[in-house]
Amino acid sequence: MTSTTTTTQTTPQVTPGIVAETPFLQALVQQVRANDHYGVYRNWSDELVLSPFVVSKEKKRSISVDGDVDPATQLRILCFYRAVATLIEKETGKLCQVVIDLSHEGFGWSLVWTGRLVVVNRTLRDAQRFGFNSLEQVADQGDKLIKSALETLQKFPEAANA
Amino acid sequence: MTSTTTTTQTTPQVTPGIVAETPFLQALVQQVRANDHYGVYRNWSDELVLSPFVVSKEKKRSISVDGDVDPATQLRILCFYRAVATLIEKETGKLCQVVIDLSHEGFGWSLVWTGRLVVVNRTLRDAQRFGFNSLEQVADQGDKLIKSALETLQKFPEAANA
Repeated sequence: MTSTTTTTQTTPQVTPGIVAETPFLQALVQQVRANDHYGVYRNWSDELVLSPFVVSKEKKRSISVDGDVDPATQLRILCFYRAVATLIEKETGKLCQVVIDLSHEGFGWSLVWTGRLVVVNRTLRDAQRFGFNSLEQVADQGDKLIKSALETLQKFPEAANA
Repeated sequence: MTSTTTTTQTTPQVTPGIVAETPFLQALVQQVRANDHYGVYRNWSDELVLSPFVVSKEKKRSISVDGDVDPATQLRILCFYRAVATLIEKETGKLCQVVIDLSHEGFGWSLVWTGRLVVVNRTLRDAQRFGFNSLEQVADQGDKLIKSALETLQKFPEAANA
């Protein structure tokens, strides 16, 4: 049998300086650094700090979805949605609250709401494997959630102010 | 020194048959029994099943608020808000979701939402001491939350249907 396997890229490639140019990634790196109580990341570049958000397909496949979600992964999920919330706040001046509810085995909800209005509402599945193909994709997904949240806020301003 | 201490009631008094007469308590007992996977409560009266929801002031004072919330207490909190949610569903035909987010040391959120609308939104404090003076008070608090949720739904029907 002749093997036709090609080498697959397992280490994520990161564009240098991408964080400084991308508002969403800046908000995200602030969230992660805010949780760095022991200063481990103090001398790390922003790109390195955000590198655990990039999880290749191969890596994802290797992560078991049995059992509870790793606390580090839970914190990353929380940071992601908190970054979404802070940018909505910045854009609208409305205080947003974030809840991540991972009931068990990686299933659950992520919610961002302001007043009586739910502006982001995502079901989480296989949260153990939370991650993106690239930092570009992180920013892209974050921006999409923010855009959709702002549209929801425009539709239902009364509920948001209640 | 002459002591004028009066005997304080520490065991909660339960009106027999109260659960059968009270829709909220019926919904609550259903939630608790639904989590009784080993049939421990099978032969218990509804009043006995709900008795852990009654926590006297003396008992509350004796419960430490340091550290995490006991899983049994967490489940009681979830059952309480799920009972609220099921009665809102019954009244309005709208599917409601419940999230209890106890971040740490008994602080957090309880949320009930439908569509884009948050209908119940309570901050939880000292959740280790979750409990009521009597089953009457359990029903009373539940009914108040439901009433307020229905009013919110009437005010913002579009957000609820979004």
